[in-house]
Amino acid sequence: MSTTEKQVPSLGELLADYPKNWGRWGPDDEVGALNYLGPEAVLAAVRSISSGKVFTLQVPMADPSGDPIWPGARSKPVRVNVIDKGHFLSGKTPPAPGGIEGCDDMIHCYLQGSTQYDALGHAWFGDQIYNGYDAKTTIGGMTKASILPIAEKGIVGRAVLLDIARLRGKPSLERGETFTHEDLLAAAAAQGVQIRKRDILLIHTGWIGLYFRDQKAFYGDGKGWLEPGLTLSRELVDWFHEMEIPNIVTDTMANEVTVDPATGTVLPLHVALLSYLGISFTEIAALDALADDCAQDGQYECLYVAAPLKVVQAAGSPVNPIVIK
Amino acid sequence: MSTTEKQVPSLGELLADYPKNWGRWGPDDEVGALNYLGPEAVLAAVRSISSGKVFTLQVPMADPSGDPIWPGARSKPVRVNVIDKGHFLSGKTPPAPGGIEGCDDMIHCYLQGSTQYDALGHAWFGDQIYNGYDAKTTIGGMTKASILPIAEKGIVGRAVLLDIARLRGKPSLERGETFTHEDLLAAAAAQGVQIRKRDILLIHTGWIGLYFRDQKAFYGDGKGWLEPGLTLSRELVDWFHEMEIPNIVTDTMANEVTVDPATGTVLPLHVALLSYLGISFTEIAALDALADDCAQDGQYECLYVAAPLKVVQAAGSPVNPIVIK
Amino acid sequence: MSTTEKQVPSLGELLADYPKNWGRWGPDDEVGALNYLGPEAVLAAVRSISSGKVFTLQVPMADPSGDPIWPGARSKPVRVNVIDKGHFLSGKTPPAPGGIEGCDDMIHCYLQGSTQYDALGHAWFGDQIYNGYDAKTTIGGMTKASILPIAEKGIVGRAVLLDIARLRGKPSLERGETFTHEDLLAAAAAQGVQIRKRDILLIHTGWIGLYFRDQKAFYGDGKGWLEPGLTLSRELVDWFHEMEIPNIVTDTMANEVTVDPATGTVLPLHVALLSYLGISFTEIAALDALADDCAQDGQYECLYVAAPLKVVQAAGSPVNPIVIK
Amino acid sequence: MSTTEKQVPSLGELLADYPKNWGRWGPDDEVGALNYLGPEAVLAAVRSISSGKVFTLQVPMADPSGDPIWPGARSKPVRVNVIDKGHFLSGKTPPAPGGIEGCDDMIHCYLQGSTQYDALGHAWFGDQIYNGYDAKTTIGGMTKASILPIAEKGIVGRAVLLDIARLRGKPSLERGETFTHEDLLAAAAAQGVQIRKRDILLIHTGWIGLYFRDQKAFYGDGKGWLEPGLTLSRELVDWFHEMEIPNIVTDTMANEVTVDPATGTVLPLHVALLSYLGISFTEIAALDALADDCAQDGQYECLYVAAPLKVVQAAGSPVNPIVIK
Repeated sequence: MSTTEKQVPSLGELLADYPKNWGRWGPDDEVGALNYLGPEAVLAAVRSISSGKVFTLQVPMADPSGDPIWPGARSKPVRVNVIDKGHFLSGKTPPAPGGIEGCDDMIHCYLQGSTQYDALGHAWFGDQIYNGYDAKTTIGGMTKASILPIAEKGIVGRAVLLDIARLRGKPSLERGETFTHEDLLAAAAAQGVQIRKRDILLIHTGWIGLYFRDQKAFYGDGKGWLEPGLTLSRELVDWFHEMEIPNIVTDTMANEVTVDPATGTVLPLHVALLSYLGISFTEIAALDALADDCAQDGQYECLYVAAPLKVVQAAGSPVNPIVIK
Repeated sequence: MSTTEKQVPSLGELLADYPKNWGRWGPDDEVGALNYLGPEAVLAAVRSISSGKVFTLQVPMADPSGDPIWPGARSKPVRVNVIDKGHFLSGKTPPAPGGIEGCDDMIHCYLQGSTQYDALGHAWFGDQIYNGYDAKTTIGGMTKASILPIAEKGIVGRAVLLDIARLRGKPSLERGETFTHEDLLAAAAAQGVQIRKRDILLIHTGWIGLYFRDQKAFYGDGKGWLEPGLTLSRELVDWFHEMEIPNIVTDTMANEVTVDPATGTVLPLHVALLSYLGISFTEIAALDALADDCAQDGQYECLYVAAPLKVVQAAGSPVNPIVIK
Repeated sequence: MSTTEKQVPSLGELLADYPKNWGRWGPDDEVGALNYLGPEAVLAAVRSISSGKVFTLQVPMADPSGDPIWPGARSKPVRVNVIDKGHFLSGKTPPAPGGIEGCDDMIHCYLQGSTQYDALGHAWFGDQIYNGYDAKTTIGGMTKASILPIAEKGIVGRAVLLDIARLRGKPSLERGETFTHEDLLAAAAAQGVQIRKRDILLIHTGWIGLYFRDQKAFYGDGKGWLEPGLTLSRELVDWFHEMEIPNIVTDTMANEVTVDPATGTVLPLHVALLSYLGISFTEIAALDALADDCAQDGQYECLYVAAPLKVVQAAGSPVNPIVIK
Repeated sequence: MSTTEKQVPSLGELLADYPKNWGRWGPDDEVGALNYLGPEAVLAAVRSISSGKVFTLQVPMADPSGDPIWPGARSKPVRVNVIDKGHFLSGKTPPAPGGIEGCDDMIHCYLQGSTQYDALGHAWFGDQIYNGYDAKTTIGGMTKASILPIAEKGIVGRAVLLDIARLRGKPSLERGETFTHEDLLAAAAAQGVQIRKRDILLIHTGWIGLYFRDQKAFYGDGKGWLEPGLTLSRELVDWFHEMEIPNIVTDTMANEVTVDPATGTVLPLHVALLSYLGISFTEIAALDALADDCAQDGQYECLYVAAPLKVVQAAGSPVNPIVIK
């Protein structure tokens, strides 16, 4: 692998001329392109609502039978009861005066081990995270560009679902299959919906659905972990920049192809879109049911409301986004 | 204390004739009064939006300086970094091909240790939880009336903020101070807003704000833990029942006075409202900023959107509710 | 599987006439056969020491590359740094006055997820655990026969290593391979060592060593989890009873064959030896190095010193036993 | 406090001429002064045994009512049941074939949150930890001088109990009270025992006992955290060096006075003894019962056997040391 690695270009050089939003919203900004979502965007987004149908986009979490987890790096959430009816049956815990009983539980989990928002400082190249903050601010807990300011703001905007899986005629994209902003536009055209400036993009690949159908295939069946997804190009990044996309939401673990086939770089859009442009990444979303509904009623736009948890200094947070059609 | 305890009546007897919604939405129901919130309620709620202002209602979580936690029973969340810039500086973790670096973290916490939704089966009297399910279904993990179905549904509805603290002319209610549905109606009248059927009630007491101003006072200053809140009466419960309130949200840990002063029972509304009527409880909400804003613009109604995490078999879940005015 | 399961006899009936030590050391006893190890046994054991060589018997714990863990039921320990040099390099944490710096870490693990002692109440049949305590005392935390009294006593005694793997001429026993007390006696005879009454038995099967050589084979290679080990018979149980064995220590996860081939019962010796006779079980021990040394110097007896942690109400505890030859 | 802090000398300068054992046992050494404890030391230590009495030195851990924990920095261990009799009573978990049932639990804790061994690299001054390893090796997990090599070796040696509390005629030393090697020698003389080269020192201050009698006093009663303990001097360090002490064990959290009264430096002996000389520190030991017994039988020497857990890359480990008299 040493030969190959030597030939992989540095993202620092590769993205040297790419656009950056650092400083655009002031030296203290920590929410990036979510700044596009002010009260007017909210009011405009509300007008996308037509039927009152509600969808929740988190995958189940801490399922005893397992959750989809980035292989190798993370372990699945562990939830355990601390008190339940057993305590009262045993006579060890008396009910409170009057007789009320209750149950309580704890969880131990990666903050990015389920459907989740990335903090803007979660990934970076070199010595600076989003907005130019020193990467050493991540040590021990993020004192800059953590998930907290995003959670304090909340995400409310117009979203469009873009169904790449349906566009390609398959339930889920293949291992390592890529697509670009052109495909997003093609999907929008095929669906009869318009992507507007400052839209949140819900990109359906069917990939997380594959986990629930065939874990072996999902994890690469011996060929290694390689998700499908968006792939790097200057044109793609410029398009996201000009469209002022505040947030992308996909049903993959990383919102982009694991390894860029053209350059061999790993997750370059985490640098170009998340770190440089400050676009929020929502990963591991459950989009199958929403995509089916959109295909059925032809309604691909919606109000999107999401609120990661206000975990102080966190690199990310689990989230259960809500879509109102 | 034995003498006193003997005189506390059983909630089973006390609430014997109180209304129950068990079976109302079928034998398999697990979301209770949230059933009131269908598409029409959503569409009606959306019409409450006027300015596009957004508020997020979670208190900060895992703050290194501590979080408000039910004393004795729970410990504060612990968040730790698993990887950060330190790993790359030390040379121990090489950046991925191309040079991307990142940080990642874990949390260990009570699922009800921050702003949170209670599962309908989280508290009960006797051998049955909400909807009549066997309380033994709570053992080891809730297989009935857990937080999961609520998280799958999501909560979207019209909410009104009712400012009891302002009504009483103080920044926060006193330790053990009580109020009733009559006070909720008085607050609404004073504010010039109408409580409609199926409204979500955001009840501002200022109590959690006290934690951030004066922890010693918050925890009782040696006199013991005693929150202010709603207090039990047949009239109050009937009012919630008839108004078909789906969800109450307060800035206290338990949505009701800790010990009912009339009967000495502990948390009786958790039985009467949560377990019997299936009304969702959202606790430890941060309502100060919203209350200030409502007082300023006179706009007390809003769209409320909340989505606890889809934690399988959980008794509750942290949540960051969003309000759109 | 239903047909098979119906034919598996109940351990209650199967072991109805087996010997029990319940009550033998009084109604409050919680350490069982460890009562055999008083000061005289300690002094006798000390005389086993000849060379001063020391061996530690725990397998590595929380290895980033994984630990041997009972499949399905448990997850591997997770250790994370809370503070380290990164914090000081970043300037976020100042050194203490004078300049001292330090690192600190946390662990989240199953208490029986590494080399470990079982509490005597950890496994049982029916409604009673060791010594006849109500099995409901296990709920939420063991208030009877937990690991605490064993940890408070400590285990110090003469031990003999019995090398079943060498006796059978293989580096490790096969999947599901069984042996009995007769084999233990044969091993002792072959080794030229005598098993005395009240000896702690260190039984080398080579099985945990297989984990480090070939995980796939260790976990059954698709044929299911089936450890080698001691197998149930009345003669075997009587022998342990008459020999007053206080503690068995093996390099397998459960000290006995996973499924008894004669009856189909799962882990029957956990009932017959641990629960009924109160014999302490030390599992997942690392015995390969000790076995090699014994084979080399012909010295199979030693002083065994082990102290599980004093975890209050725990079902077991990790341990790093020490052997002094 | 800024004025004071400016006047605190740097430990780097203060200890510039102090002895160091770095390199003494080779460039790869990670166990330091424990190298003094070879087979001969073990055999000599065994001869200290006279009565066969056994003591275990860990304080209880994860007690629901709380454990002694370094204030501010750490949280108490949390132990929770994962399965117990409640699961079987509810019918949710079927017993295994034959009918065996069991209970299992997990713990989340600081590795130095109970009686514990420090890794030699756990504390340092400047850029180098014990033996000159780069302090950056601590990042994310200790790849040098972690607890693992100490746990692999095990600690077996002759120990003497030195009862400073009895020498001073009080049940426990006062907050901030100091003592030196001269006091250790005075205690030994008063007790009629000789401290030999390479002895492990068990130093009884009574301090941890105070936690169980009066937590308020233990934590400083509003005056701040200030343990009693050994205090820095060149003579003291030279004495430990010349006596080749491998390990000190005390019933305080840090084995030394929290703030050195002469210089204002915090925990300077962690640098001078632990980091520079490689002397193992065992902290938070329970020594009251042993001290009482020694006072009664006049026997202050013993065999000391301790084995921290083999936690890979850990900064420390809980331990339950055993003393055999």
